[in-house]
Amino acid sequence: MPVPAPVLYPPFNIVRLSHVEFAVTDLAASRAFYVDTLGLQVTYEDKERIYLRALEERGHHCIALVKSDTPVVNVLGFKLFDEPDLEKAKAFFDKKGLPTAWVERPYMGKTLRTCDPWGIPLEFYVKMDRLEPIHQHYKLYKGVKPLRIDHFNCFSADVNGAVDFYNEIGFRTTEYTEDEETGHIWAAWMHRKGGVHDMAFTNGLGPRLHHTAFWVPNPLAIIDLLDLMATTGYLHNIERGPGRHGISNAFFLYIRDPDGNRIEIYSSDYQTVDPDHEPIKWDLKDPQRQTLWGAPAPRSWFEEGSIFTGVELKESHLKAQPIIAP
Amino acid sequence: MPVPAPVLYPPFNIVRLSHVEFAVTDLAASRAFYVDTLGLQVTYEDKERIYLRALEERGHHCIALVKSDTPVVNVLGFKLFDEPDLEKAKAFFDKKGLPTAWVERPYMGKTLRTCDPWGIPLEFYVKMDRLEPIHQHYKLYKGVKPLRIDHFNCFSADVNGAVDFYNEIGFRTTEYTEDEETGHIWAAWMHRKGGVHDMAFTNGLGPRLHHTAFWVPNPLAIIDLLDLMATTGYLHNIERGPGRHGISNAFFLYIRDPDGNRIEIYSSDYQTVDPDHEPIKWDLKDPQRQTLWGAPAPRSWFEEGSIFTGVELKESHLKAQPIIAP
Amino acid sequence: MPVPAPVLYPPFNIVRLSHVEFAVTDLAASRAFYVDTLGLQVTYEDKERIYLRALEERGHHCIALVKSDTPVVNVLGFKLFDEPDLEKAKAFFDKKGLPTAWVERPYMGKTLRTCDPWGIPLEFYVKMDRLEPIHQHYKLYKGVKPLRIDHFNCFSADVNGAVDFYNEIGFRTTEYTEDEETGHIWAAWMHRKGGVHDMAFTNGLGPRLHHTAFWVPNPLAIIDLLDLMATTGYLHNIERGPGRHGISNAFFLYIRDPDGNRIEIYSSDYQTVDPDHEPIKWDLKDPQRQTLWGAPAPRSWFEEGSIFTGVELKESHLKAQPIIAP
Amino acid sequence: MPVPAPVLYPPFNIVRLSHVEFAVTDLAASRAFYVDTLGLQVTYEDKERIYLRALEERGHHCIALVKSDTPVVNVLGFKLFDEPDLEKAKAFFDKKGLPTAWVERPYMGKTLRTCDPWGIPLEFYVKMDRLEPIHQHYKLYKGVKPLRIDHFNCFSADVNGAVDFYNEIGFRTTEYTEDEETGHIWAAWMHRKGGVHDMAFTNGLGPRLHHTAFWVPNPLAIIDLLDLMATTGYLHNIERGPGRHGISNAFFLYIRDPDGNRIEIYSSDYQTVDPDHEPIKWDLKDPQRQTLWGAPAPRSWFEEGSIFTGVELKESHLKAQPIIAP
Repeated sequence: MPVPAPVLYPPFNIVRLSHVEFAVTDLAASRAFYVDTLGLQVTYEDKERIYLRALEERGHHCIALVKSDTPVVNVLGFKLFDEPDLEKAKAFFDKKGLPTAWVERPYMGKTLRTCDPWGIPLEFYVKMDRLEPIHQHYKLYKGVKPLRIDHFNCFSADVNGAVDFYNEIGFRTTEYTEDEETGHIWAAWMHRKGGVHDMAFTNGLGPRLHHTAFWVPNPLAIIDLLDLMATTGYLHNIERGPGRHGISNAFFLYIRDPDGNRIEIYSSDYQTVDPDHEPIKWDLKDPQRQTLWGAPAPRSWFEEGSIFTGVELKESHLKAQPIIAP
Repeated sequence: MPVPAPVLYPPFNIVRLSHVEFAVTDLAASRAFYVDTLGLQVTYEDKERIYLRALEERGHHCIALVKSDTPVVNVLGFKLFDEPDLEKAKAFFDKKGLPTAWVERPYMGKTLRTCDPWGIPLEFYVKMDRLEPIHQHYKLYKGVKPLRIDHFNCFSADVNGAVDFYNEIGFRTTEYTEDEETGHIWAAWMHRKGGVHDMAFTNGLGPRLHHTAFWVPNPLAIIDLLDLMATTGYLHNIERGPGRHGISNAFFLYIRDPDGNRIEIYSSDYQTVDPDHEPIKWDLKDPQRQTLWGAPAPRSWFEEGSIFTGVELKESHLKAQPIIAP
Repeated sequence: MPVPAPVLYPPFNIVRLSHVEFAVTDLAASRAFYVDTLGLQVTYEDKERIYLRALEERGHHCIALVKSDTPVVNVLGFKLFDEPDLEKAKAFFDKKGLPTAWVERPYMGKTLRTCDPWGIPLEFYVKMDRLEPIHQHYKLYKGVKPLRIDHFNCFSADVNGAVDFYNEIGFRTTEYTEDEETGHIWAAWMHRKGGVHDMAFTNGLGPRLHHTAFWVPNPLAIIDLLDLMATTGYLHNIERGPGRHGISNAFFLYIRDPDGNRIEIYSSDYQTVDPDHEPIKWDLKDPQRQTLWGAPAPRSWFEEGSIFTGVELKESHLKAQPIIAP
Repeated sequence: MPVPAPVLYPPFNIVRLSHVEFAVTDLAASRAFYVDTLGLQVTYEDKERIYLRALEERGHHCIALVKSDTPVVNVLGFKLFDEPDLEKAKAFFDKKGLPTAWVERPYMGKTLRTCDPWGIPLEFYVKMDRLEPIHQHYKLYKGVKPLRIDHFNCFSADVNGAVDFYNEIGFRTTEYTEDEETGHIWAAWMHRKGGVHDMAFTNGLGPRLHHTAFWVPNPLAIIDLLDLMATTGYLHNIERGPGRHGISNAFFLYIRDPDGNRIEIYSSDYQTVDPDHEPIKWDLKDPQRQTLWGAPAPRSWFEEGSIFTGVELKESHLKAQPIIAP
């Protein structure tokens, strides 16, 4: 079963993924991880929350950390192209029978909160406070030198359904894994902004957030981060990598934040702006799709993910399909 | 005088720059430069012409080299989003009183040939033959490992006018240099595909092509190219760099092909997909705009450029403005 | 039990490790691996043998490949400082009751063949044919850009004994792993030339050659090799890495040649020329000694090694000690 | 006139260059440069002096900064192999009629102060306080990540004489520039520790210290330093580079400290431990000897240097020979 044809004129215009909000249990520990170790920049903080941006970003934040008793993902945020897209988005989700609400968010203009059919909490906005560029303030470059948020990846118990839904709102598939025995899509990578993905889905107990990725300038920044984490008490936060993905061709590293949220450090995928850019199909049995060099991912990588607020996971999803690739 | 506001809904939708055609005087010498030294891949060649693509490109070519008695630039090519954009583009140029024609081009679908108000020959198309991906055929990676064509930069005797015209067809300005004494724009960088530029203009005897740029994975690929060129007879083809641009923040090198066409090797600018991405203004008197580290460009870099076919350069342009920055 | 004090005035002066000779079963397959993939340079070849050097070496060869029915390691070669050192070396080995002989070797001057007390075949020489420098012939740089042979590592059933013997002939220990329960040295790294090692020993069924290492300029060369091997049929020759060693602090990759000989690609250890350079002790229970980032080595890495010519391995060695670190 | 044959058994055994002491006029400014910008580590500081080491060094210091009214170079320090070498060194310099004295130096054992025949102040020692390794304390890696002091380079009004003298005490020439018209050696690079040089001499008003070099892991560390210096007020301290030297094949950058002392950042020369390592001859008229890629050095680089304490420069030296290469 091939992926659906791209929708060139979607119902509303999503520019790119924008930000994630994590409810975290220890704000100081999260700050030590995201700021002191990864090198993200604080744009606001008080005792309850911290906002962060990466070094080439001008929007106010790509991560919001809010203090909580329980770790959970509060929202995946996306930037829309123009004001009318907000109303068009609302109309689309209303028509689908999904809950919509205009919400107030600090540092952001009019914001639509909704969710996808499986419950992933989504927010869409056009305006976020713009900050002065800091990409040439090189004294700020530390840790892994994170330049920008790159993508989300979610576990899904219905990848085919997810691909259809996100395709309908304009995400174009760049690569996908097919289970040739069943004909089902095992995983798919879908973009808006011209890279390999803004959003990906992979078969598993879902919906859960598999990881959030940051773009860094080159593989040496990732090696620097590994050396730093390995010698500053974060050895066990290193989960997988470094390596080259078959899918996306990016150089990668997966690490875990203090609450277990998985962060991918990602570099050097490729440009996909052509509307006739053909998706690449991978066979589920090809181990090089995950790591071109052949190293397997650890079990935790296939099994563990972050819970979205308000989502009740159903055991049936877990039973229905194996969550570890053969 | 600030740059004009971006046109969010331009008269037709340009996806990105696509290709350049160089008339060259010695096809073998050009092949030695572009293929054996830079590492571009031949997609077609005979005794009269060579077509080349970079390693992550799937379109048939980003450079066409055609044998000629005189070196000249035959066309700058741009990819449009969808078939209707071709007619919309024709209508736009017709209305401007600029010459338009449907032309036949090998490996390409319906193609519109026209020019900008100063005579730069432009061609627009939607479909070009798509080739199998080779970005993971790592045995092909040689020279500077060119991944994709990135941008054109043109000398212009009327940068303000050029910025207005290209802004009208949807190019958004990301950075520009202002001559604070006259209030004129000295140079501007304008994009369609979400990087710093697809097209740039710089004050000088124009219109001429200043350079064509290729994106490479990281600065070490550029250092490798320098070592290679310096020891294989291309020492004098190295013109400027390596360095970090203030404008664009990219790591760069300028080299000259056997006919004198300037090629920029370019890496690591930043993402500009946000429609409210604010342009950065530089002062003409700030030497760091060109090279963040302060090294000046050589005189040739300010003075020499490639001629476009059919364009008669007027002396008055040269006299009107100094072509070397103070 | 600490390592013995360095012998500042050894009985003869070894400059550095020099070369290895592998008997290989398929000369063409070995050539494809060492020349076309790794990028070593052929200095002589005929139907029976191939000699190779790395890019900054001026000696005639660092690897000799000789056609054979059975894969075996024929010799580990070391360069001595001056002619009198040859006689001094002979006297030393004679006194130890070890076999010595003057042998003829192509491209080499007077050569002493002997072996260590466990049977590792050693050859010592002062003069080898010197070739023109090629380190600035950058068109030759391919594969992993190997610059020079760096070290040998051998399995030993008696690491304490090996350390004592090689210490006596002037090798100085830079790092070692101690089994704190038994007080035995589990592994040791010993140098002559001012890096972390020319020769290392690790506990296991021995004597066998664990690996031969080549120095490369930086981690990106190793990433390039991984990409190349993974896409040219050498996926299963990648055994371990890339990673950072705790011991030596070098960036590493282990691969296997067509006969199973293990090659390490190695970059960026540190300078150890000071005669009072203190060895670093690691605990056998510390997993970061092997990979600073925590990734374990595969079982094959602990168990498999290359046989030395003329050495009969005794089962008792294997039984005496576990060969996999706890 | 070729360089003299290496002295394999010199009168005393120098292990390597060790340290330099700079009298500086503003200790805080020097600290901001060496510590906050370059990333050297403070091992001791008070209001009068700062001692620094690089990241892989275990000796107490490679730079001493002492507060002074006038900037001057107080000493170039070298480590000897063993205690008897101290007396042998004294005997050698005494015999040459050069002043010798046993001096007390903090953190160092018995120290011989002397000078070369042209007045360069030299100190030799065997023991310096050894500190715990920090090369795996990656949180300390900042700035250009300096790993170790690599070499000194001095202006000399008598390069032929300097080469003869330093050759006599065991320095072996690895590369040199010959003025083919006069047959004189224009410049020479001489080593003890197995790299291209511990000490170099270049024709000019001398003796003066041309520069002190630090080894860094790879070219990207140098690019990072350029970005940092260019955006933190050190733009005008960048003097030359980055580039590849023809001589030494190293990747380099020259910067100036707040008192004008020149520091080279240096990476990736080659191993020279073989006693029969042949020196490479360059022609003074070959511009690639300085920068393989052809970029010329600025005038300041040929003319400016640091004064050694107690040395009176004679005008006649300046007049005798041109100090800028043709």
